[in-house]
Amino acid sequence: MSESLTQMRRRFHRFPEVGFTEYITTYEIYRALEGTGFKRHLGHDVLVPSKRVGVPSQETLDGSYRRALDYGVPKEFLEKIKDGMTGLVATIDTKKPGPHFAARFDIDGLPITESTDDDHFPHTENFISTHDGEMHACGHDGHITVGLNVAKYISENIDQLKGKFTIIFQAAEESVRGAQAVVEKGWLDDVDYFFSLHLGIRKLPVGTVSLSTTDFLATTKFDAHFTGKSAHAGVEPNEGNNSLLAASTAALNLSAIPRHRDGTTRINTGSLKAGRGRNVVADSATMEIESRGETTALNDYMFERSVKVLKAAADMYDNDVDIEIVGQAINANISSDLVKEIKDTVQNTNGVIDLKDSLPLGASEDVTFMIDRVQKGDGQATYMLFPFDLKFGHHHPKFDLDEAVLPLAVEVLQNITRSVMKAD
Amino acid sequence: MSESLTQMRRRFHRFPEVGFTEYITTYEIYRALEGTGFKRHLGHDVLVPSKRVGVPSQETLDGSYRRALDYGVPKEFLEKIKDGMTGLVATIDTKKPGPHFAARFDIDGLPITESTDDDHFPHTENFISTHDGEMHACGHDGHITVGLNVAKYISENIDQLKGKFTIIFQAAEESVRGAQAVVEKGWLDDVDYFFSLHLGIRKLPVGTVSLSTTDFLATTKFDAHFTGKSAHAGVEPNEGNNSLLAASTAALNLSAIPRHRDGTTRINTGSLKAGRGRNVVADSATMEIESRGETTALNDYMFERSVKVLKAAADMYDNDVDIEIVGQAINANISSDLVKEIKDTVQNTNGVIDLKDSLPLGASEDVTFMIDRVQKGDGQATYMLFPFDLKFGHHHPKFDLDEAVLPLAVEVLQNITRSVMKAD
Amino acid sequence: MSESLTQMRRRFHRFPEVGFTEYITTYEIYRALEGTGFKRHLGHDVLVPSKRVGVPSQETLDGSYRRALDYGVPKEFLEKIKDGMTGLVATIDTKKPGPHFAARFDIDGLPITESTDDDHFPHTENFISTHDGEMHACGHDGHITVGLNVAKYISENIDQLKGKFTIIFQAAEESVRGAQAVVEKGWLDDVDYFFSLHLGIRKLPVGTVSLSTTDFLATTKFDAHFTGKSAHAGVEPNEGNNSLLAASTAALNLSAIPRHRDGTTRINTGSLKAGRGRNVVADSATMEIESRGETTALNDYMFERSVKVLKAAADMYDNDVDIEIVGQAINANISSDLVKEIKDTVQNTNGVIDLKDSLPLGASEDVTFMIDRVQKGDGQATYMLFPFDLKFGHHHPKFDLDEAVLPLAVEVLQNITRSVMKAD
Amino acid sequence: MSESLTQMRRRFHRFPEVGFTEYITTYEIYRALEGTGFKRHLGHDVLVPSKRVGVPSQETLDGSYRRALDYGVPKEFLEKIKDGMTGLVATIDTKKPGPHFAARFDIDGLPITESTDDDHFPHTENFISTHDGEMHACGHDGHITVGLNVAKYISENIDQLKGKFTIIFQAAEESVRGAQAVVEKGWLDDVDYFFSLHLGIRKLPVGTVSLSTTDFLATTKFDAHFTGKSAHAGVEPNEGNNSLLAASTAALNLSAIPRHRDGTTRINTGSLKAGRGRNVVADSATMEIESRGETTALNDYMFERSVKVLKAAADMYDNDVDIEIVGQAINANISSDLVKEIKDTVQNTNGVIDLKDSLPLGASEDVTFMIDRVQKGDGQATYMLFPFDLKFGHHHPKFDLDEAVLPLAVEVLQNITRSVMKAD
Repeated sequence: MSESLTQMRRRFHRFPEVGFTEYITTYEIYRALEGTGFKRHLGHDVLVPSKRVGVPSQETLDGSYRRALDYGVPKEFLEKIKDGMTGLVATIDTKKPGPHFAARFDIDGLPITESTDDDHFPHTENFISTHDGEMHACGHDGHITVGLNVAKYISENIDQLKGKFTIIFQAAEESVRGAQAVVEKGWLDDVDYFFSLHLGIRKLPVGTVSLSTTDFLATTKFDAHFTGKSAHAGVEPNEGNNSLLAASTAALNLSAIPRHRDGTTRINTGSLKAGRGRNVVADSATMEIESRGETTALNDYMFERSVKVLKAAADMYDNDVDIEIVGQAINANISSDLVKEIKDTVQNTNGVIDLKDSLPLGASEDVTFMIDRVQKGDGQATYMLFPFDLKFGHHHPKFDLDEAVLPLAVEVLQNITRSVMKAD
Repeated sequence: MSESLTQMRRRFHRFPEVGFTEYITTYEIYRALEGTGFKRHLGHDVLVPSKRVGVPSQETLDGSYRRALDYGVPKEFLEKIKDGMTGLVATIDTKKPGPHFAARFDIDGLPITESTDDDHFPHTENFISTHDGEMHACGHDGHITVGLNVAKYISENIDQLKGKFTIIFQAAEESVRGAQAVVEKGWLDDVDYFFSLHLGIRKLPVGTVSLSTTDFLATTKFDAHFTGKSAHAGVEPNEGNNSLLAASTAALNLSAIPRHRDGTTRINTGSLKAGRGRNVVADSATMEIESRGETTALNDYMFERSVKVLKAAADMYDNDVDIEIVGQAINANISSDLVKEIKDTVQNTNGVIDLKDSLPLGASEDVTFMIDRVQKGDGQATYMLFPFDLKFGHHHPKFDLDEAVLPLAVEVLQNITRSVMKAD
Repeated sequence: MSESLTQMRRRFHRFPEVGFTEYITTYEIYRALEGTGFKRHLGHDVLVPSKRVGVPSQETLDGSYRRALDYGVPKEFLEKIKDGMTGLVATIDTKKPGPHFAARFDIDGLPITESTDDDHFPHTENFISTHDGEMHACGHDGHITVGLNVAKYISENIDQLKGKFTIIFQAAEESVRGAQAVVEKGWLDDVDYFFSLHLGIRKLPVGTVSLSTTDFLATTKFDAHFTGKSAHAGVEPNEGNNSLLAASTAALNLSAIPRHRDGTTRINTGSLKAGRGRNVVADSATMEIESRGETTALNDYMFERSVKVLKAAADMYDNDVDIEIVGQAINANISSDLVKEIKDTVQNTNGVIDLKDSLPLGASEDVTFMIDRVQKGDGQATYMLFPFDLKFGHHHPKFDLDEAVLPLAVEVLQNITRSVMKAD
Repeated sequence: MSESLTQMRRRFHRFPEVGFTEYITTYEIYRALEGTGFKRHLGHDVLVPSKRVGVPSQETLDGSYRRALDYGVPKEFLEKIKDGMTGLVATIDTKKPGPHFAARFDIDGLPITESTDDDHFPHTENFISTHDGEMHACGHDGHITVGLNVAKYISENIDQLKGKFTIIFQAAEESVRGAQAVVEKGWLDDVDYFFSLHLGIRKLPVGTVSLSTTDFLATTKFDAHFTGKSAHAGVEPNEGNNSLLAASTAALNLSAIPRHRDGTTRINTGSLKAGRGRNVVADSATMEIESRGETTALNDYMFERSVKVLKAAADMYDNDVDIEIVGQAINANISSDLVKEIKDTVQNTNGVIDLKDSLPLGASEDVTFMIDRVQKGDGQATYMLFPFDLKFGHHHPKFDLDEAVLPLAVEVLQNITRSVMKAD
């Protein structure tokens, strides 16, 4: 199994696609599920378009569409998922009474240029990203691989299983943009067991498994657009209202927002683009920002302070500032009964060396919207972690999966599936 | 004449092209000189390629090339000037002994999006830029117009003139990038009279003419590239070396470099681009910066302090910084004897209401390299100003020429030409 | 009892003295213990002088000395504790075999000007600070009061108790400067039971008691001294190396040090003093800074990043910077067996409504050095919290104790004393 | 003469007193004028108290008063000038008809600690400041010396002179605080010839004399007081409204106010004092700021931008900011006819090597209020410069006069006096 998982992961690693442009990825998932008995849902059947957030520009969407055509994705397939309607839901019904099992795997890449250093394994092993400026730097290539193999397992063992299954291959998890649109389509409404996972996250030996996760950070993703006034920087610098300096002042002071007594907070200005010519006082600037908090209240604190900083920085330089929210995620609490229910099964899985009830995430994940919806319908949900010995962190140009984690994750999920869904 | 000048200027206004991409502009100048008797030099005959500074990326060059093809510029013409070998030198020889007369007109636009406000004349009169994000916001459309009409005058009066003529339509004056490459080709080496000009600059009534200019600012154009370390902004912000904050700190502290006792200085960070994803600590940033000084020493002071600020900002955030000089201009002193020689002629020109020996520029111009070369060859050189009542400054999205200045400038230059080049 | 506790607390509230200047306070504690049978240790018997950190300037010490003389403290008493040798240790031995019981109460005030607003209770009730710029804004007036009443209880019940008792009235807890000098004198070396406490901290109803505390923050207190170069700000601003801007840049970027994945961090520039004349470029600046971390490693991270920021800010403005560590505190873990041992006793104390095993402190306390020493000698130690409904936070000019917490704290400690030290 | 001038200057150098505390200085001037025939005016006869700006705190005034008592200034003398009514006006009338001649010499020191480096001449020659933290770092000790010797000359030559004489020894020139109060008392109302000077300023050989000065900078001196909210920096940093960071942000952005097309500007935050305790979020900050401009309009531009920056910085951190103007100076234009009138006289003075009609000051001087008043009364006024080879700039801890400039300045002024006031 190891060998085939590795091959599959490396294949997906070669064509990372950022959120809502996963045209090739969706197509390859579609093909991989051929002949498994799963019904494959696409496009408007998967997502409520208006509930997506942070959809890329039409230009970007079209560019990725053309790239997928060049890759060989059939035009009729692309037409179903075009304009950012990516991802796939696979469903199968055993026709035997039983619970509704769902699992979610996220499939998008990141806008990062992969390292070509000699010590970067995907480079030396020749499966580096072929998409300039895009990279699977968060391990979602591994997630897809695990998801497809869980589906394969269900397909091959359908006779021994009961109930029904929904496997969600979700677009645009990065920047927490895609989950809500799936949730709003109703896919999680009557789920009894919901499983999701992340590979890596904690730097611990392969064989460590965490049954659940704490410390999902609530988050707000927002853009700030400054509008000032340009002027010739040599002839009359005093005539300008400098947007670049307004944004620089804002960036520094955003990072200086005080830590909060009640817990963990985060703030990041991930990008700043200001000005257009060296000798012109910059009259516009755009910042991509995100706040996070251990609780919604803490995230609100960070966001409200951020707004104050941005507005004051604009005032300081006679700029206008427009603040636009483009993504959000909530907290979630894992269902503790589910953790107890699966504990023995996981403990007894081959390769599990160190089993933990929970580990902290310390990050944001829009799977929380799914967990929340499942729990609202009286289902149970968890998010598991499969650590490995990270050499470089997630989102780093030299991030790499330890492929030994793949069979472990697949086997754990297979065992859980058998345990909770075994036909009587 | 007024009417035809206005038409010509508006025509050029419609297709502004930034420095070294003036494919359409060069072609239209070429066509306008057809039948005038002028020999038209192009491409490698005009410029030493390696002496150009700040040539745009191949992608930008290629985009403009395609745009020029779409516009209708013949492929064989484009091949001569492709890859940023733009501009044109027109020469004509009266075959009578006499001085060598040269004049220079700059032809490039700016990377500014032209205003579509209702009070913006080029918009309401329907000759607004058709090139998104590019604009003739410095009046070079007018400069081209004046240059072509001076050439026309010489052509039509060739029998009454002596000596020889060189009319330079120079690419990439903005950010002082194009002049050196023309100078190094030798075009200024044996010039006796050199004339150049700028429309506008000072807000004074049309009819004001300045015979010369003081206060050319020495300048250094430089880019700073910060390289830090990315990290997941939620999971492990402490692992990042933030290039965005390094650059923001630099931008603020660059602007805070103290004024100098010895005179005028300038500093501008015209653009800043940092980071690539909202949830990633930015690991790169690029700033386009320029320093200026009333003297070379003052500019050196600004540049040296800038380097110190940039390096310290990089250290503060464990970044590397690479500083690259991409443009430079020197000072120049106008030939005072030439000013005296032409004074009466200009005074007696129609429409000249207020004649000044000199006005300050307070900006940088790479024409200073040409003036310097002419003077080194014992020629005389000046740079004249033709002010008008500016509503918005140069480089502003609503900058507009008062077209009444066009016939004035043409007539002044015609009279000067006749005065200094009249056949015996 | 309530009435007498209130009176005592208000008396101490009137003469707050900052760390190592508690001359009046020490004298009043000394007097209050008269006739109790306790031996009262002072000066060099209490502290190892060289282990004190952050001792004020001689000028400040002398000023406070004179103030104490004016107050009426006898000269011969003051001579014993002069030059910052403040605080008092009271000991008593029952002469019966038994454990060694120790308790610590901190006695210093803060350099804060107390509010004279109409809604500030100490002002309206006329027991506001009589020392300009100093204030009991952290409740140590209450701590002294509790300490003296515990001593009184021991004194009055000496016949029913066994073992020996050490009551430490510690100077200079604020900025964690005084505990180490007491520890190094050996007072904690053979202690079996160690109790300490803080009033307030958490905003919870009176009646809430926490038997122990988590989240002591490790901390480093340090000063940064910038030295630049002055210059006339009008005539030759370029000649200056501006220390004020170096320090301002440092302050902003210190606050922008990224949050850490592993837990809570803090950074504060509590004071900044730069420059000396409006028209002189500032050539010196001094910052009082503190870093904190949930663990020593986290505090080290903050401190090391701070050093980097300070050095780079100095470089940016051609300044030298001198960084001096003036205080430090470590972590501590409360002895859980002790918590179990006293739980029932506290639960059954009058007025205890809500008993908690532990609450987080989220701050630094040099009592951790004492706890550490007791535990190294196989003793047991805790730090208890007695919350009340805080209207304004600790260190605020309008901070005020809810005096109802005083009898509660005294009674809890009396009951604990009886419980663990009861003669057989 | 040289020897006696040097002695006098070194004597005054020893007891520098900052503006409005010149108790010893005024007394020594008073004594030096004894027996000269000059009437010596003091206190309320010299100044309109309410027109002084930036008078120090009562505590500072009282401290300097006590210091003067200790020095030996008689109490009855001090009572006349106490509370900051310092400076002296000396008048004498020849009783012969003739013009009214006035001259002004400023007498205050600066709040700078004088260097004790081995290469600092006043230190090695043992006439260093005896007043800690105060220093004659602008040469006013030399100005007093010149003034007293001009008075001596007039006194000794009174029979050869006509008209009347007013010699003003003005307090508090630094930060432009003292002149207006003298002007408002009417001393300049009917002056025909007004002379004033500065030693140094330009680094040129002794023997250089400038008959007049251009480029007086208009200036506004202002304080900004931020009021935020304190909080315990460890327990609840989020509760604070940080005044220290507001002020730091303001300081940086004030220095970043863009240069102005119309000419020279200056901005300086000379001092910043924020916060009061390391572990408390700073809830107050005070900045001493000054703006300057080559014209009043340019200074207004700087001041208005400053107000915007300060208000926005306060908003950013939820602070209030109070902006208080504490000093102002205007421009002045020297009377060109006066320059012509004295030119030959100065040219023919011993030791004058290089005579200039004017040199630029590039700084602010409240003598401009006096020049303005004299000119409004149809008198003529100038401000002369006597450069020397500055090793360290004005306001530097190692600033030192070249004493060779003293006899030159005295002789020039004597010759001018004789020339314009010679009895017929």
